[in-house]
Amino acid sequence: DFKRAITEVTPSFGSTDNQFESYAENGIINYGPVFDKLLQSGNAFVEQVKKSNRTPMMSVLLSGRPGCGKSSLAATLAKSSEFPFTRIISPNDLLGYNESAKASKITKVFEDSYKSPMSCVVVDEIERLIEYVPIGPRFSNLILQTLAVLFKRTPPKGRKLLVIATTSNPDILKDMDIMDCFATVLSVPSISTAKEFQTVCFELGFTQKEASEAASFFTSPITIKQIIMIVEMARQEEGNFIDNFKMCLEDFNIRNF
Amino acid sequence: DFKRAITEVTPSFGSTDNQFESYAENGIINYGPVFDKLLQSGNAFVEQVKKSNRTPMMSVLLSGRPGCGKSSLAATLAKSSEFPFTRIISPNDLLGYNESAKASKITKVFEDSYKSPMSCVVVDEIERLIEYVPIGPRFSNLILQTLAVLFKRTPPKGRKLLVIATTSNPDILKDMDIMDCFATVLSVPSISTAKEFQTVCFELGFTQKEASEAASFFTSPITIKQIIMIVEMARQEEGNFIDNFKMCLEDFNIRNF
Amino acid sequence: DFKRAITEVTPSFGSTDNQFESYAENGIINYGPVFDKLLQSGNAFVEQVKKSNRTPMMSVLLSGRPGCGKSSLAATLAKSSEFPFTRIISPNDLLGYNESAKASKITKVFEDSYKSPMSCVVVDEIERLIEYVPIGPRFSNLILQTLAVLFKRTPPKGRKLLVIATTSNPDILKDMDIMDCFATVLSVPSISTAKEFQTVCFELGFTQKEASEAASFFTSPITIKQIIMIVEMARQEEGNFIDNFKMCLEDFNIRNF
Amino acid sequence: DFKRAITEVTPSFGSTDNQFESYAENGIINYGPVFDKLLQSGNAFVEQVKKSNRTPMMSVLLSGRPGCGKSSLAATLAKSSEFPFTRIISPNDLLGYNESAKASKITKVFEDSYKSPMSCVVVDEIERLIEYVPIGPRFSNLILQTLAVLFKRTPPKGRKLLVIATTSNPDILKDMDIMDCFATVLSVPSISTAKEFQTVCFELGFTQKEASEAASFFTSPITIKQIIMIVEMARQEEGNFIDNFKMCLEDFNIRNF
Amino acid sequence: DFKRAITEVTPSFGSTDNQFESYAENGIINYGPVFDKLLQSGNAFVEQVKKSNRTPMMSVLLSGRPGCGKSSLAATLAKSSEFPFTRIISPNDLLGYNESAKASKITKVFEDSYKSPMSCVVVDEIERLIEYVPIGPRFSNLILQTLAVLFKRTPPKGRKLLVIATTSNPDILKDMDIMDCFATVLSVPSISTAKEFQTVCFELGFTQKEASEAASFFTSPITIKQIIMIVEMARQEEGNFIDNFKMCLEDFNIRNF
Amino acid sequence: DFKRAITEVTPSFGSTDNQFESYAENGIINYGPVFDKLLQSGNAFVEQVKKSNRTPMMSVLLSGRPGCGKSSLAATLAKSSEFPFTRIISPNDLLGYNESAKASKITKVFEDSYKSPMSCVVVDEIERLIEYVPIGPRFSNLILQTLAVLFKRTPPKGRKLLVIATTSNPDILKDMDIMDCFATVLSVPSISTAKEFQTVCFELGFTQKEASEAASFFTSPITIKQIIMIVEMARQEEGNFIDNFKMCLEDFNIRNF
Ligand SMILES: Nc1ncnc2c1ncn2[C@@H]1O[C@H](COP(=O)(O)OP(=O)(O)OP(=O)(O)O)[C@@H](O)[C@H]1O
Ligand SMILES: Nc1ncnc2c1ncn2[C@@H]1O[C@H](COP(=O)(O)OP(=O)(O)OP(=O)(O)O)[C@@H](O)[C@H]1O
Ligand SMILES: Nc1ncnc2c1ncn2[C@@H]1O[C@H](COP(=O)(O)OP(=O)(O)OP(=O)(O)O)[C@@H](O)[C@H]1O
Ligand SMILES: Nc1ncnc2c1ncn2[C@@H]1O[C@H](COP(=O)(O)OP(=O)(O)OP(=O)(O)O)[C@@H](O)[C@H]1O
Ligand SMILES: Nc1ncnc2c1ncn2[C@@H]1O[C@H](COP(=O)(O)OP(=O)(O)OP(=O)(O)O)[C@@H](O)[C@H]1O
Ligand SMILES: Nc1ncnc2c1ncn2[C@@H]1O[C@H](COP(=O)(O)OP(=O)(O)OP(=O)(O)O)[C@@H](O)[C@H]1O
Ligand SMILES: [Mg+2]
Ligand SMILES: [Mg+2]
Ligand SMILES: [Mg+2]
Ligand SMILES: [Mg+2]
Ligand SMILES: [Mg+2]
Ligand SMILES: [Mg+2]
Repeated sequence: DFKRAITEVTPSFGSTDNQFESYAENGIINYGPVFDKLLQSGNAFVEQVKKSNRTPMMSVLLSGRPGCGKSSLAATLAKSSEFPFTRIISPNDLLGYNESAKASKITKVFEDSYKSPMSCVVVDEIERLIEYVPIGPRFSNLILQTLAVLFKRTPPKGRKLLVIATTSNPDILKDMDIMDCFATVLSVPSISTAKEFQTVCFELGFTQKEASEAASFFTSPITIKQIIMIVEMARQEEGNFIDNFKMCLEDFNIRNF
Repeated sequence: DFKRAITEVTPSFGSTDNQFESYAENGIINYGPVFDKLLQSGNAFVEQVKKSNRTPMMSVLLSGRPGCGKSSLAATLAKSSEFPFTRIISPNDLLGYNESAKASKITKVFEDSYKSPMSCVVVDEIERLIEYVPIGPRFSNLILQTLAVLFKRTPPKGRKLLVIATTSNPDILKDMDIMDCFATVLSVPSISTAKEFQTVCFELGFTQKEASEAASFFTSPITIKQIIMIVEMARQEEGNFIDNFKMCLEDFNIRNF
Repeated sequence: DFKRAITEVTPSFGSTDNQFESYAENGIINYGPVFDKLLQSGNAFVEQVKKSNRTPMMSVLLSGRPGCGKSSLAATLAKSSEFPFTRIISPNDLLGYNESAKASKITKVFEDSYKSPMSCVVVDEIERLIEYVPIGPRFSNLILQTLAVLFKRTPPKGRKLLVIATTSNPDILKDMDIMDCFATVLSVPSISTAKEFQTVCFELGFTQKEASEAASFFTSPITIKQIIMIVEMARQEEGNFIDNFKMCLEDFNIRNF
Repeated sequence: DFKRAITEVTPSFGSTDNQFESYAENGIINYGPVFDKLLQSGNAFVEQVKKSNRTPMMSVLLSGRPGCGKSSLAATLAKSSEFPFTRIISPNDLLGYNESAKASKITKVFEDSYKSPMSCVVVDEIERLIEYVPIGPRFSNLILQTLAVLFKRTPPKGRKLLVIATTSNPDILKDMDIMDCFATVLSVPSISTAKEFQTVCFELGFTQKEASEAASFFTSPITIKQIIMIVEMARQEEGNFIDNFKMCLEDFNIRNF
Repeated sequence: DFKRAITEVTPSFGSTDNQFESYAENGIINYGPVFDKLLQSGNAFVEQVKKSNRTPMMSVLLSGRPGCGKSSLAATLAKSSEFPFTRIISPNDLLGYNESAKASKITKVFEDSYKSPMSCVVVDEIERLIEYVPIGPRFSNLILQTLAVLFKRTPPKGRKLLVIATTSNPDILKDMDIMDCFATVLSVPSISTAKEFQTVCFELGFTQKEASEAASFFTSPITIKQIIMIVEMARQEEGNFIDNFKMCLEDFNIRNF
Repeated sequence: DFKRAITEVTPSFGSTDNQFESYAENGIINYGPVFDKLLQSGNAFVEQVKKSNRTPMMSVLLSGRPGCGKSSLAATLAKSSEFPFTRIISPNDLLGYNESAKASKITKVFEDSYKSPMSCVVVDEIERLIEYVPIGPRFSNLILQTLAVLFKRTPPKGRKLLVIATTSNPDILKDMDIMDCFATVLSVPSISTAKEFQTVCFELGFTQKEASEAASFFTSPITIKQIIMIVEMARQEEGNFIDNFKMCLEDFNIRNF
């Protein structure tokens, strides 16, 4: 029937590496100091949960516009934590469940995490999990309330838990009064300088010369995901690649603004 | 009982040609360079999905006013892709199902597509699929959320998927915050010049002379679907055909503006 | 139990003449050129569906204030089409069904129509069928969406269908974005001149002299249905009939404006 | 259990006199020409339905503020019609039924009426029947739509039906777009002159002298129901009756304005 | 399970004295002429129902701010009526029932009352019974409609009924259009003068001297319930009682304004 | 299945000490006179319920911003009351129950409390219990109404009950008209002076010198919970602890304002 299992929580604890396969499909590009800083903060939270007894539980929010790399970063942090229990709760895996089944599945992941000494749970795309749409606005209050409790609830004595949640829409989370659930919020930026743009292009297979020419086309912030899409579009066209890239980038800028 | 099967998804993969029969019932008229460009863009997306490994999944939106030819164009692109799995999800085939059955049927088509190495899924008339009405406004958030996930969800490793969706109402999709699901949006225009108008008339069986006289009646953008309706009305009337056509066109312009 | 059958759709195709009995109960009065033109347009649509292959399906909307004669006109057109399958979908026959049963009954009539080579379906009082009330506003979106699909869905190859829908409230149909479903909209007017008023009175049994005196009382547009009601009220009163008629008409005008 | 039968519709047709017992509990006082005119209009409708073949069905609305005597008047007209089938549909009898059971009970009364050659159905307190409350506003759209159809639906050939509905809130009926269902609206006034006030007092047992003294206290429109309440309050007090009456009337005016 | 019986309605008629035990827990203090007048009005209604044949049914509303003594007064009037059937319908007894069970329980009490020749039913805290909350606003329209009918429905011939309802929020009852259900509204005031304040203090066990000193602290209207709370708080503190009382009263005034 | 038992109410009465374990996880720091006063008021309510016969039932509300220590204080007061029956009703324990099950569980705790001569019930995070979200706003009116009754309902004769409720959002409780349920409201403040800040730091393990240096960084009110989080973040960083602390505090202030 129309139900698909959420990423199965195996009875024995421990990370399920293959769950991370579908994240960061195009790899992680270290595009400069801004990204370095971000990774460092993320890793510090992992350390704090590991070592501090006063904060055995922490919830952190990654926010940034669509495609900026939130899911990829969250998955990368969770994986590199090497905690015995790591899970990703994603709308992709919850399609076909009604709101109460979703709330139940989500709760189950957290309660499983309480059985491991050290856990990391990624809660990806909060607004999609709560089925948010700005018209109305509508959303599942059941799922929202469930998350609001889970983001704050301390695990049993001696257990530790890091929660990494992602959102493209931090304003509505503020309007929903659930920002207080998070110890802190990290902004995941777009590619915002010609320098970063050049690095990304180079990492995507441009020659040094192509990358530096490409950098001169940079006009406004753009996500890595969008750059990848534009590069691949340009590769379909006949003729000079860099010219095509320039044209595709311009087309993109016109369509989106 | 009151249920009708969605265009049956055959257990073996591959396109079901007869599904396309009811689209572009009046054929495709190449009315000039604007249409050429449109077709070319559409075909480039097909190529990109076929070849690029970084973008194994793409969702494209065709938008334009009612009757401008979105469904016909989408069906034509899907058919000419010659992908082994091609399907059209249309409100016509979902009449009589409740919102959860609709969401389930839609999901099923996508999950079937994941089993084919290369697939193209047309999602026709999003606003009708989500049962949108501007008063309220009301719509099925369940179907909307399902589409929002499916338009972005990457198929399993090695599988490729092109999604072509259509809408007459891109503004409400923007209001619903699902435009980010699409890699790009193509506008399907109306017939907007006397030259295009003349070509369409000629292709609809006017003599060269009639067509060029007709072109002189052109005042404001009109869709091919509307031109066809007006031509057929004119054919019912007695007397000079071109005079009748002129009168019917004037009547139409008065009634619609 | 509390269910009443919709006008039964007989297994064999063909019109069910007695269904039309309860329409135009007071006959059709040809009150002048305006009505002539209306009838002629209606008949042209019948012809177009019969003959054109490019427009095997057409939906036409009759709009006008309550009592102006929409239902009577629609029924008259359907009957005179002499199509083998003619049906009226009316709120009168759907009392006691819930919204999903109504949607199902309506769909059934259309699907039955697809089995006949040539069909005419009257959809009477759209706003009542969708259970519309301006406060809220509220209405059955299920029935609305069903109609929106049915008004546009092409019948199978070789089948032809004329849909004649009626409404007293075209503005809300516009607000609901379903006007595009109709190829055209015909306005059914009220009795708007003293001349028309005189003709109607004469046809209702006034002597020539009474009718021409009555015409002098005409002040503002009024429907035939209202004229009939006023005439019958006047007939209850004692004394001079024309004086009574004048008084009743004045009373009516005061109460309604 | 928690269901009470609506005034039972006996299988054989004909009026059930005892149903009228609980109406006009304090009798009908003819308080002057205004009331005479009202009764006369009511009776004319009865005659019209009896005699006219062009208007075999009529719906009339009685409107007026709470306590002005709408229910009493409607019941009186129905009873005096001496039609073989007369019924009152009242919220008092529908307590404990859900909205769909109410709609069903109401429809049943009308369908029973269609079996009698001549019927009169009183529909008392429309806004209470539809469970209307101004906050929201909320009401049963199911019951409203049912009434909207029943108020207009012609009975089968040869059957005649007079519907008398009552409301304290004609404005919301207008907002709900159901005023067009009624052939006409009769306003039931309050006691609006000192003369009428005097007549009512006299009929309630005042001496001629008391009644004429009472008339001098009259300041603003008041319903017979309210006068009765005030008279009875005054009767509880010790001391001079007319003085007590004056005081109670003043108290009432203060509390209500 | 989660259901608690409403104050049981015994099969035999007659008052159930112990039901009144939990009302007026701190007794009734006659704090002056204002209270005298109130009691007198209440008793007059009891007499009217007993004696008048024209008003065998009366509904009276007690309104006043929280804690002013509405429930205590209503219970006291009902008890002192010595009617064979007296009941209190209170939200305290309806916890755990859903809205339809509540409506049913409430109706049952009224229908039981119709079997007694003379009855008094207290309907305590209407806004809580209808589950009213100003945000939205939300409330049970089912319970509201049930009350609206019951407050007006005349009992069968020869039966008499006094209904005493209470509310802290008469404005919303006006907004809900149910004020017309009541023959009259009595305002239950707060303690509004130093004199009344002194009397209440004295009756609560202050010495004459303490009471008259306390009176000098009086600044703004306060309910007896609040005075009792403050007195008891003051009794917990060490040191001079009157000083403590003054301080607690000041604290209270600061916190509440 | 997806249900978790609320903190089990043992059949025999008496406090369940381990229920308090998960509260005040970081202990209670007496950070100065403001906190002293708060504790003292809390204890006075305990005494009043114990001793006064006129106020055998009291509901008190603790309000303050997230993390200020409301839950810890409420649990501490309840525990130190040494009443034979003490319970905490917390959203943490009600995850997975639907609104009606929650209302039932909550009612059960109160009804159990009525069986003990002396009870204290903590109702933690009212807005989370009622599933409040400001968008809409939405909340469970069922749970709200249940609480509104329980906060005011007097226990049976001879039983005593202290209710301590907590909220971060007293404004919405006011908007919901349930503030009148509480005898009084206590504000739980944040750390608001450099002096208090210094005390807290010292109690968290700073040396006297570090604490006094830390005090100089104090700029604006902050909760103990936030201070703890910042201290623990600082402990993860390499280098001088006080410098890290300063930086983390500054980061925090920037992110939050
Ligand atoms: N430094 C980086 N950080 C994040 N993603 C990166 C980075 N470098 C490359 N990528 C690639 O960029 C893409 C980021 O997509 P991702 O789905 O993580 O974005 P997102 O912010 O979660 O988008 P959405 O809002 O649509 O969920 C991935 O393909 C990933 O492999
Ligand atoms: N170049 C063209 N592109 C699209 N349609 C064409 C073209 N030339 C002719 N047509 C005809 O025009 C009509 C377009 O109708 P179609 O249903 O595709 O429009 P649509 O935009 O999907 O309308 P709707 O918004 O009502 O769904 C079809 O009959 C099709 O055969
Ligand atoms: N030329 C005419 N066109 C339509 N109706 C006519 C005409 N002449 C007479 N009539 C009579 O006028 C009445 C029109 O009523 P009808 O129910 O058709 O109006 P309607 O517009 O459908 O009203 P409603 O909005 O209430 O449904 C009928 O009794 C019909 O017999
Ligand atoms: N001429 C009269 N017309 C109507 N009622 C009269 C008249 N004379 C006396 N009465 C008495 O006045 C009272 C009118 O009450 P009734 O219930 O009919 O009013 P209503 O308008 O239906 O009130 P509500 O709006 O509350 O339903 C009855 O007791 C009736 O006996
Ligand atoms: N004269 C009086 N009238 C009413 N109550 C009095 C009087 N004298 C003392 N009391 C006491 O005052 C308190 C009034 O509380 P009560 O519950 O009746 O108020 P209420 O208005 O119903 O409050 P709420 O709005 O909270 O329901 C009771 O304890 C009652 O014993
Ligand atoms: N004097 C104090 N009062 C309260 N809490 C204190 C105090 N001193 C230290 N703490 C600690 O501060 C923290 C307060 O957290 P607590 O959960 O009680 O806050 P809260 O106001 O209930 O927060 P929330 O609004 O998120 O529920 C606890 O870790 C507690 O141990
Ligand atoms: Mg993502
Ligand atoms: Mg289309
Ligand atoms: Mg009609
Ligand atoms: Mg009435
Ligand atoms: Mg009370
Ligand atoms: Mg707390």
